[in-house]
Amino acid sequence: MTNRFAARRRALLRKIGENRIGCLLVTRPASWYYLTGFTGDSGALVVSRNGTTLITDGRFTTQAREETSGVRIIQQSRSLAAAAGEFLKGARGRVGYDAAHVTVGQLAAMRKAAGARVRWVASQGYVEGLRGLKDAKELATMRLAAVLAGRVLEGALKLLKPGVREIEIAAEIEFQMRQLGASGPAFETIVAFGERSAYPHARAGAKRLRKNELVVLDLGAILAHYCSDITRTVVVGRASTKIRQWHKSVQEAQAAAIGAVKAGASCGEVDAAARKVLAGYRLDRYFVHSTGHGLGLEVHEDPRVAKGQKQVLEPGNVITVEPGVYVPGVGGIRIEDDVAVHATKTEVLTRIPRDLIEI
Amino acid sequence: MTNRFAARRRALLRKIGENRIGCLLVTRPASWYYLTGFTGDSGALVVSRNGTTLITDGRFTTQAREETSGVRIIQQSRSLAAAAGEFLKGARGRVGYDAAHVTVGQLAAMRKAAGARVRWVASQGYVEGLRGLKDAKELATMRLAAVLAGRVLEGALKLLKPGVREIEIAAEIEFQMRQLGASGPAFETIVAFGERSAYPHARAGAKRLRKNELVVLDLGAILAHYCSDITRTVVVGRASTKIRQWHKSVQEAQAAAIGAVKAGASCGEVDAAARKVLAGYRLDRYFVHSTGHGLGLEVHEDPRVAKGQKQVLEPGNVITVEPGVYVPGVGGIRIEDDVAVHATKTEVLTRIPRDLIEI
Repeated sequence: MTNRFAARRRALLRKIGENRIGCLLVTRPASWYYLTGFTGDSGALVVSRNGTTLITDGRFTTQAREETSGVRIIQQSRSLAAAAGEFLKGARGRVGYDAAHVTVGQLAAMRKAAGARVRWVASQGYVEGLRGLKDAKELATMRLAAVLAGRVLEGALKLLKPGVREIEIAAEIEFQMRQLGASGPAFETIVAFGERSAYPHARAGAKRLRKNELVVLDLGAILAHYCSDITRTVVVGRASTKIRQWHKSVQEAQAAAIGAVKAGASCGEVDAAARKVLAGYRLDRYFVHSTGHGLGLEVHEDPRVAKGQKQVLEPGNVITVEPGVYVPGVGGIRIEDDVAVHATKTEVLTRIPRDLIEI
Repeated sequence: MTNRFAARRRALLRKIGENRIGCLLVTRPASWYYLTGFTGDSGALVVSRNGTTLITDGRFTTQAREETSGVRIIQQSRSLAAAAGEFLKGARGRVGYDAAHVTVGQLAAMRKAAGARVRWVASQGYVEGLRGLKDAKELATMRLAAVLAGRVLEGALKLLKPGVREIEIAAEIEFQMRQLGASGPAFETIVAFGERSAYPHARAGAKRLRKNELVVLDLGAILAHYCSDITRTVVVGRASTKIRQWHKSVQEAQAAAIGAVKAGASCGEVDAAARKVLAGYRLDRYFVHSTGHGLGLEVHEDPRVAKGQKQVLEPGNVITVEPGVYVPGVGGIRIEDDVAVHATKTEVLTRIPRDLIEI
């Protein structure tokens, strides 16, 4: 365990060294977990050739000492940003920080505390780039997390009966994931009935299910720190011809996008593959979001699988592929699976059927 | 409903006008919900005398149109920050943004898109200040959320038996809150047994309960958008003399802090009241976090109830009061209640007993 974290820090040091960054400030909890094993949610991690230092508050110092190895722990008692700035006062070379995560106020406080000599450089994506390339052990965990999510989804289908409320299904889903070993949901479980399925990010509410309504279930579990994310759309009763046609189109779009996933392909190509199929059915204007996102320690991480994204897929990437069609006032359909990129093949981690289910 | 949101926007306009801010950019989801009723989690809200505009992506536009009234909705297709900057291009007067929330990268993208003419001003706390002053209707909801959390906690006590795992209790707690009408947990439920209770922010894990161990339960529910937050510490079996003494000290510290809560008192005074009692028992060095925080649409919001905080409590503020004592290798004790400030009295919203329970 310890060696794994230390090896990641060494890989990071090589990367930042190549870019003439002397010290990297790591502010995302998932990234400091990746580098140290620390699971607290308040802190600032500084990685440099002189060692790794975690600045955190009194709620987390005991825990940080037990969870990490080879990491100096500093307990701060005032502002975290001021403490991080103070610590970086004597830093040599350029100090990298994540401009997509550090707030304007935090940077100002750090600059003030660190003094005028420190050279701050916006330098995004170093840790996130490493995190995107999952090793065999991480992939093994993600397989289990994906299978777990599929089992929970299949279990939830059995509870879908006219009269049941969205929120009851969501509660049951999150309860069952923990029964199966998850530490919790990777995001707020989406359960949307009828017209509400036309909201891609509906919050489960008090609505009761009626016969022949669409049901979108979108859920994810965190298992041993890694996230899964799966969506299926079903009809409780009989689907209309139109719904069947839409579902078939989304299924075809998803298959095309999964087919486009391979090492060397760009994320934009994967997105375009889904969009092209939907355009063939004149449904592309109802596909109002991007095709997918990276998945790992966070439920949304690099790479983004969206229109025009030039980032190239590499072995070890895990992404979601989740096209959808949403017609205001009628309903929505989304099908989502988790896909791992290997050198010579694509592996779908989520294993349950995708055909339209009529319950 | 509509009038409530519009009235809040008018109050905000008065406030920013007094500070010569022409346009305020609102980036916190809880704050844009407060001002418009929009419940999506991606967007940027611009409030000015010329009207209120919400910029969001395709996942949320239909929902935004249905949830809001008197708000112009713009669907953005690229970067949210670039779209917000573009929209603000012609803005007259100074444009306020929340430096504690906007990232360095977002501000750079907005500046670039808006052009050199726009004057950006870091201006924090306008909406958050209004949110801190709960009206009668908000207080009524928060009372229900607090009572609900207490009921769930009392229900969970019945499940504490040697052999049960932390994660099972956490799953049951979150399931029960939804059964009672909550939309979900306000934060990841903390269930910590034995030595693990010495971590103030322990994540519920696979640990099984043993006889005579301490149990810290810290949970909160979201009811009709408003959060509650409650903690109790119990012993399953018999408490040692030392544990009884610690619990009594924390209880006394909490009573002193609640006693210090009143309109006109500073947050620092409330914190000091708790700390003083613990110092009398030589336990203050084990009290490693602040005494409390504001509570409302977010589980942590203004005001902060911490050492030296000068902010003065006003009628309508709702805060938590949660001193604790954490001894590494032994265990921790925390007692937390939600307290509303009125003009002439203090109201404790959470209603369940605080004495040490031995189950």
